[in-house]
Amino acid sequence: MIAPSAYESLERLFSRLSALDDALGILSWDRDVMMPEGAANRRGNGVATLEGLRHELLVSPATAELLAKAEPGSDPWRQANLTEMQRLHARAVAVPGPLVEALSKACSRTEMAWRSAREANDFAALQPDLQTVLDLTRETAQAIGGALNLSPYDALLDGFDPGMRQATIAPIFATLARDLPPLLHEVLERQASGPAASAVGQAPFPIAEQETLGRMMMERAGFDMTRGRLDVSTHPFCGGATDDVRITTRYDDTDFLPAFLGIMHETGHALYEQGLPAAWQGQPVGRARGMTLHESQSLLIEMQVTRSRSFAAFAAPVMAQSFSGGGNWTPEALCQHMTRVAPGFIRVDADEVTYPAHIITRYELETAMIDGRLALRDLPEAFNARIRDLLGLDVPDDRHGCLQDIHWPLGLWGYFPCYALGALTAAQLFEAARQKIPDLAQSVRAGDFTPLLGWLRTTVHERASSASTMAIVEDATGQPLGAESYLTHVRRRYLEDAD
Amino acid sequence: MIAPSAYESLERLFSRLSALDDALGILSWDRDVMMPEGAANRRGNGVATLEGLRHELLVSPATAELLAKAEPGSDPWRQANLTEMQRLHARAVAVPGPLVEALSKACSRTEMAWRSAREANDFAALQPDLQTVLDLTRETAQAIGGALNLSPYDALLDGFDPGMRQATIAPIFATLARDLPPLLHEVLERQASGPAASAVGQAPFPIAEQETLGRMMMERAGFDMTRGRLDVSTHPFCGGATDDVRITTRYDDTDFLPAFLGIMHETGHALYEQGLPAAWQGQPVGRARGMTLHESQSLLIEMQVTRSRSFAAFAAPVMAQSFSGGGNWTPEALCQHMTRVAPGFIRVDADEVTYPAHIITRYELETAMIDGRLALRDLPEAFNARIRDLLGLDVPDDRHGCLQDIHWPLGLWGYFPCYALGALTAAQLFEAARQKIPDLAQSVRAGDFTPLLGWLRTTVHERASSASTMAIVEDATGQPLGAESYLTHVRRRYLEDAD
Repeated sequence: MIAPSAYESLERLFSRLSALDDALGILSWDRDVMMPEGAANRRGNGVATLEGLRHELLVSPATAELLAKAEPGSDPWRQANLTEMQRLHARAVAVPGPLVEALSKACSRTEMAWRSAREANDFAALQPDLQTVLDLTRETAQAIGGALNLSPYDALLDGFDPGMRQATIAPIFATLARDLPPLLHEVLERQASGPAASAVGQAPFPIAEQETLGRMMMERAGFDMTRGRLDVSTHPFCGGATDDVRITTRYDDTDFLPAFLGIMHETGHALYEQGLPAAWQGQPVGRARGMTLHESQSLLIEMQVTRSRSFAAFAAPVMAQSFSGGGNWTPEALCQHMTRVAPGFIRVDADEVTYPAHIITRYELETAMIDGRLALRDLPEAFNARIRDLLGLDVPDDRHGCLQDIHWPLGLWGYFPCYALGALTAAQLFEAARQKIPDLAQSVRAGDFTPLLGWLRTTVHERASSASTMAIVEDATGQPLGAESYLTHVRRRYLEDAD
Repeated sequence: MIAPSAYESLERLFSRLSALDDALGILSWDRDVMMPEGAANRRGNGVATLEGLRHELLVSPATAELLAKAEPGSDPWRQANLTEMQRLHARAVAVPGPLVEALSKACSRTEMAWRSAREANDFAALQPDLQTVLDLTRETAQAIGGALNLSPYDALLDGFDPGMRQATIAPIFATLARDLPPLLHEVLERQASGPAASAVGQAPFPIAEQETLGRMMMERAGFDMTRGRLDVSTHPFCGGATDDVRITTRYDDTDFLPAFLGIMHETGHALYEQGLPAAWQGQPVGRARGMTLHESQSLLIEMQVTRSRSFAAFAAPVMAQSFSGGGNWTPEALCQHMTRVAPGFIRVDADEVTYPAHIITRYELETAMIDGRLALRDLPEAFNARIRDLLGLDVPDDRHGCLQDIHWPLGLWGYFPCYALGALTAAQLFEAARQKIPDLAQSVRAGDFTPLLGWLRTTVHERASSASTMAIVEDATGQPLGAESYLTHVRRRYLEDAD
């Protein structure tokens, strides 16, 4: 038997790491969907142990030796795989093992604390645990930033979207901050002078009927139910493991739209995961590129497609059949509800005209907290002030303010900007798709996602991590990532009644 | 900071191994309850990787060094903990890592194959995969047996019930084989001459109502729902993790008894797990002693308590309220159904008079297969022949024969005898409990499990692995483990109408 090459040994090592990642993915899903509350402490310790083991394998001296010796040959995927391995290794060696375990334990504990604190609208109860997460996150960011010559915040950002920098985000967010407020004003004026929204369907919308509809629409969009699941959790997410992509939603029987749109959103994430190249399963190059592209896939399905006039023409009669309560189910009424613009408190329920304001708020605040310019105790006030500035709303309590999102308790600092960048990418990709697929609107109107999904598979999903976010976007659309397609889309949909 | 002692380092190592065990426990539960079918292959590989990592940690030279140096001090629990560590290490070093991974992968694949084969009643379709499991199990048994100076089958048995040997089982099973058939004959004659069984309740028994009843009874028996769950799977089991004990059942709306008794059975297992000493969580000495005691706890709750006249007096009116279908719910009718003796094909549905015959069949066949005296292709015929001998029944197809149990496909060879030994232990423990708790029958009649559970906590659960099965049984009952209490119990319940 010939001894494996250094590169082959690395593939084997990363395949084992990927098995640990998959186990952690299922355990994380289980924690949010299944786990009894009394198991929280023990589970937190267990997950921290697995993460510690994963870290040890990655940073072992043997790994560094293999990386130094490995020769990937001429295949560009193998080359890209090695580059990804080097990147993951460099980030990992920068952070001491005990810090990894401490942060993981703190996040497990804080997530549970967040659940109660949010329920009880009690930021003070969360603050001590969240402070620990913030402190350990800053320590981690400084360690990685020091090693990679990045600012602490860029170090965090780079973990979610490799290559993305504050310097790239700044001009894009500046454009949005400049152009969206007047656009919002125009849209609201036009909306106020138009016809009042008529009701869609008739509440209550039984949860079983909502679930059946959701499953049908997921499958229609291309979700492979033999390699995934739909369940319920407090905060909807897409998680799970390779070949086992699990999305969640939450139901409200007085309004079917949040759960339905949530399912379509998470389905967009899931289609990306399910569309990654099978040949590179378990290897770094075979993973989704980053959270900007991931969010672009969810927002493309939810915002660009599902809320369009074409999709409403398909969906309204299907919904009329799904819900036993009767009521008005015209495509016009449905579409009007899906595209109603109303500045509100809850990010995940926000329309696309006001959504960037939610992200800009969180982005500004988290950069300030990571840089040490904002203390955690001042977060509620700062959060509410910024929402007042950007959306003209007075946040009534922290449940509708800084307690609403799971990200900070879970240690996901640096993630939020990917949502807004993802929204821009979605608009830019969908604009390109419309040019590349002549009958796109027509197929959406027929409930046929096949042409769109085929194009996304080729241009985004199957490229996995073989290129950077920026390169994938530019190859797919012919343009570097920017805010223009998004602003055009908002104008077309909200001021010109076009899809 | 003082460096940890060798013993303390071992505690830390085994605590990490226990985190891996817990992760594997949840993944295993997930596979049987939640996992979409398309994830099977990837999951099998992932679990095998985790088991490989676990194995590597356990057999690393560093572990052997620590075990050689460790001094547990004078505390008997620490001493017992070190003994358990040595035992686990000795078993593990005997088996090469690649064999561990190969067996794990084969079991994952074979379990899936078993599901389809059982459904399709197609033993031939299962045979190739099952052959691989058998071959790798034999190889494993020989490796362990060689290292510990045990026969291959004793090596397997020792893995499920440390210290148990074929030589101990032989006279006990001989007594059962001698005394049970005439007893069965007497019981059947008496049953035939008595009143015909009257129906209990009125089918259908809606699954939601069965589940509500099951949950209520679990909690009544002492199951802590904040540290466990009840779900549905093809083959009922008790699994999960520390502080997260998960039991499953399967429902049939034409008959509520199998699911109900199954829930009570698995609850017995769960009470053992939930009653293990919190101070020794994550350490080998803190684990359940073995499968004989584990099965004794499930059978004590299911067979000794739940099927008793006293319990029926409590349960019948509760059931009458739980099921909306009406019908006859007298304690007498319920008890009659729970103690009806009828030789049948399915082990998990068997009454306690015929149950040992199912075990003796499997025990004989699996020892023969491990010893190489029986080829797998001859298993269906041999199985059916033995069921004909012992129970006078002609097995109609393999689904009702050798395909019914998950144990062999899952690699659990050497497990079956623990069921029968557990039944004997349950009878012996319950006889002792009746002597120690004067009002036991009265508290069961009131649906109060507290006195019994308290006694089990002290005599069995809290002893964990601090002593051997035989010592725990003898300390609790004043007698070495034997068949006498069981035979007395069968005579009392089935020939003398006593509890």
